Amino acid sequence: MSGTSAREAEPVAIIAGNGRLPFYVAEAAREAGTPPFIIQLSGETGTDWADFEHMEADLGGFQPVVAALQKRGIRKVVLSGGVRTRPELKSLRPTARLIWSLPVIIRKLRSGGDDKVLRMVIDLFERHGFEIIAAQDIAGDLLATAGTLGAVAPDREDRSDIDAAARAAHVIGSMDIGQGAVSLGGRVVALEGAEGTDQMLARVRAMREAGRISRKRRGVLVKLCKPQQDLRADLPSIGPETVRAAAAAGLGGIAVEAGRALVLDRAEAIAEADGAGLFLLGLEPGMN
Amino acid sequence: MSGTSAREAEPVAIIAGNGRLPFYVAEAAREAGTPPFIIQLSGETGTDWADFEHMEADLGGFQPVVAALQKRGIRKVVLSGGVRTRPELKSLRPTARLIWSLPVIIRKLRSGGDDKVLRMVIDLFERHGFEIIAAQDIAGDLLATAGTLGAVAPDREDRSDIDAAARAAHVIGSMDIGQGAVSLGGRVVALEGAEGTDQMLARVRAMREAGRISRKRRGVLVKLCKPQQDLRADLPSIGPETVRAAAAAGLGGIAVEAGRALVLDRAEAIAEADGAGLFLLGLEPGMN
Repeated sequence: MSGTSAREAEPVAIIAGNGRLPFYVAEAAREAGTPPFIIQLSGETGTDWADFEHMEADLGGFQPVVAALQKRGIRKVVLSGGVRTRPELKSLRPTARLIWSLPVIIRKLRSGGDDKVLRMVIDLFERHGFEIIAAQDIAGDLLATAGTLGAVAPDREDRSDIDAAARAAHVIGSMDIGQGAVSLGGRVVALEGAEGTDQMLARVRAMREAGRISRKRRGVLVKLCKPQQDLRADLPSIGPETVRAAAAAGLGGIAVEAGRALVLDRAEAIAEADGAGLFLLGLEPGMN
Repeated sequence: MSGTSAREAEPVAIIAGNGRLPFYVAEAAREAGTPPFIIQLSGETGTDWADFEHMEADLGGFQPVVAALQKRGIRKVVLSGGVRTRPELKSLRPTARLIWSLPVIIRKLRSGGDDKVLRMVIDLFERHGFEIIAAQDIAGDLLATAGTLGAVAPDREDRSDIDAAARAAHVIGSMDIGQGAVSLGGRVVALEGAEGTDQMLARVRAMREAGRISRKRRGVLVKLCKPQQDLRADLPSIGPETVRAAAAAGLGGIAVEAGRALVLDRAEAIAEADGAGLFLLGLEPGMN
């Protein structure tokens, strides 16, 4: 746990779920002059937070989190990273039961899509006087910009795949199922459910290797915000890992929405994409 | 190649794609008194057709198929089984080029969803004077009937999952992406793309084992006809393998549409479902 003696801006906390996203957000926030206090959700990640002031907490135990934030005078909270392991009833601690045991909340938490769960967590913090802010509010450089991010641009066939995948991603997003879709030769071949983007790309790779989808068409990945998504919850994100998985799946590129998606480790992601001949595209808002 | 000296009904041919479906259809047809002539598409399956009169053909070579059918006086053709390996241009034989080289057909064949490809194949046969009939026309016993097929019935939670999965399956079907969806605790966790139902179920199983979806909720698989699907192409099908995969994924049951889905090897499928405590349900048409 490192010291945080010289804060240049209002202190913030990051509730960190799984994946590398919270770490990127934390680093970007620190670079932007706001070293965050990290609350790592138990069992959600292997991120090493040694360089940040941090604590671990259980989704079932809300009271210790409130105490830690109040002690540090933190009023602004960022939610980052998914929650893969939905808490089971038995993990809810008595101290938190008053809040968490509301049947409707528990039902949502255990059965809702990510969007419902995040909305519920946001409500919970707000009812305790905290302000939920977006990762991009403390680390704006993460936001995807419009146009091609690297050296490669989509061609006409890629554009047609972007349209097809974007339509599908929009539909499954509006149903709170997932954010991503892969289209190839104008045909949508994979839709993202609870498995996440990386596993969907691994599936596309496997279908490609099995000859189940054309080996000659490249295809694209599109990730979109869910239409009804609270923009303070995690935006769709891509990073070097996504680029590598897309390249391994034989795709020609990745498209996200400018201003409504995060690009993690941008320099490395672009270098990977350029090296593999993939385009990275920020779609103009409203284009799809 | 066995003899077929005593045909009781008008002769039919089955164009057999991949999977076990064509074999079930062929067996059911023979039991119903119509021993079919099998045209096995090259490279699509390992089915042993020794018990049926059969030949092998390439999707790119249409002329030998026409000759074989005419020689046998066969005018009715059933299409059964998917075509996983879309033919590449180089596999199209000169004799068939006249037909297959129409740019629009090739584009559809290589980029369309199953539905587009099947529609195109149907057109091709019809233009040559053949009549495409449905598998259920020669093997009506394969059709799913309404209500619970086995000993287990869906409970209230299963019904809610059936609704959620059916809505999702309807949407992706209308986009010609896939037929199946899995819902669990009211949340859709997996959507079927080009990978097919069995692989989607394997994914649900993996997510379950990884704790990514609840281990306590069961969940259901729903398979629906694509709204725009030609009913002479394969209807959604389930069989003992589907039941085993659903059980391995921890699901509580499977729902299909009565009269618009095939149940293969019904006795074994029901026995498997009963043994594993799964329901098999034929939804009343128009229920979803």
